Amino acid sequence: MPFQFSLVPIGRVVSSRSQPLDDRWDEVTSQIVLDRGQLDPSAITGLTDFSHIEVVFVFDRVDTAEIETAARHPRGNPRWPSVGILAQRAKNRPNRIGITCCALTGVDGLTVTVRGLDAIDGTPVLDIKPYMEQFAPRGTVRQPAWSHELMRDYW
Amino acid sequence: MPFQFSLVPIGRVVSSRSQPLDDRWDEVTSQIVLDRGQLDPSAITGLTDFSHIEVVFVFDRVDTAEIETAARHPRGNPRWPSVGILAQRAKNRPNRIGITCCALTGVDGLTVTVRGLDAIDGTPVLDIKPYMEQFAPRGTVRQPAWSHELMRDYW
Repeated sequence: MPFQFSLVPIGRVVSSRSQPLDDRWDEVTSQIVLDRGQLDPSAITGLTDFSHIEVVFVFDRVDTAEIETAARHPRGNPRWPSVGILAQRAKNRPNRIGITCCALTGVDGLTVTVRGLDAIDGTPVLDIKPYMEQFAPRGTVRQPAWSHELMRDYW
Repeated sequence: MPFQFSLVPIGRVVSSRSQPLDDRWDEVTSQIVLDRGQLDPSAITGLTDFSHIEVVFVFDRVDTAEIETAARHPRGNPRWPSVGILAQRAKNRPNRIGITCCALTGVDGLTVTVRGLDAIDGTPVLDIKPYMEQFAPRGTVRQPAWSHELMRDYW
């Protein structure tokens, strides 16, 4: 058996979206309800000094039998090139981890409210990190045309 | 027992740094050696069309007994405020997940070479994602003064 890590979600997403739609995620406000059994309320002390957070979550509604380990067309669109699963951000990926930077709009106890989290209702959350501008890419960003097209209406 | 996910690393970091130093990570070139047993070589087809990638890894050298679930001073520095573990990016965090955006400098088979990966030699990698400018924060970024000071010499 290969080496494994057992990770325990620190909370869950509460969202009005229960289906993984492709677009307009910035219209969605969600709550991340953190687990009092695992975290002290002080675990998010100071979080509101940051405008944005990175949310690490699991695409748990993807069946593990559906995980891609090779290449495919993003969104199954034949107009876009077939690229490796690690060269796209599709959810059917090894370990099924999603990461999104979203706007922090409020904190109440261990409930964190955000705008623009592209994770559906019930999604398990593994981590929250404060966004710091120093974690942006250093240097000029280059990316292929298909990725600009795919992302056009995403937020 | 709480609900868990078993995640299997898709590769390992090969780096000249074997100690978790605080600063000057952009001087470091590392390889991410992906696991042929889990991924087809086509899993990274098209990756070099992106200038930067996000690397998701596990701070596996942090003893699980050392994980913080409340608040503390970043880097133990009493001049900085005591903030929650989820309001900082310290490695002693629940689930011990690290995420860093670094410059992609080359691909050879299933070995990916990057500059500026702040993960020490042997670190297990859970995922690689292409960086797209659309995943940058939407809106103005705000962050506290301590985080600017802490990050001053990081890269």
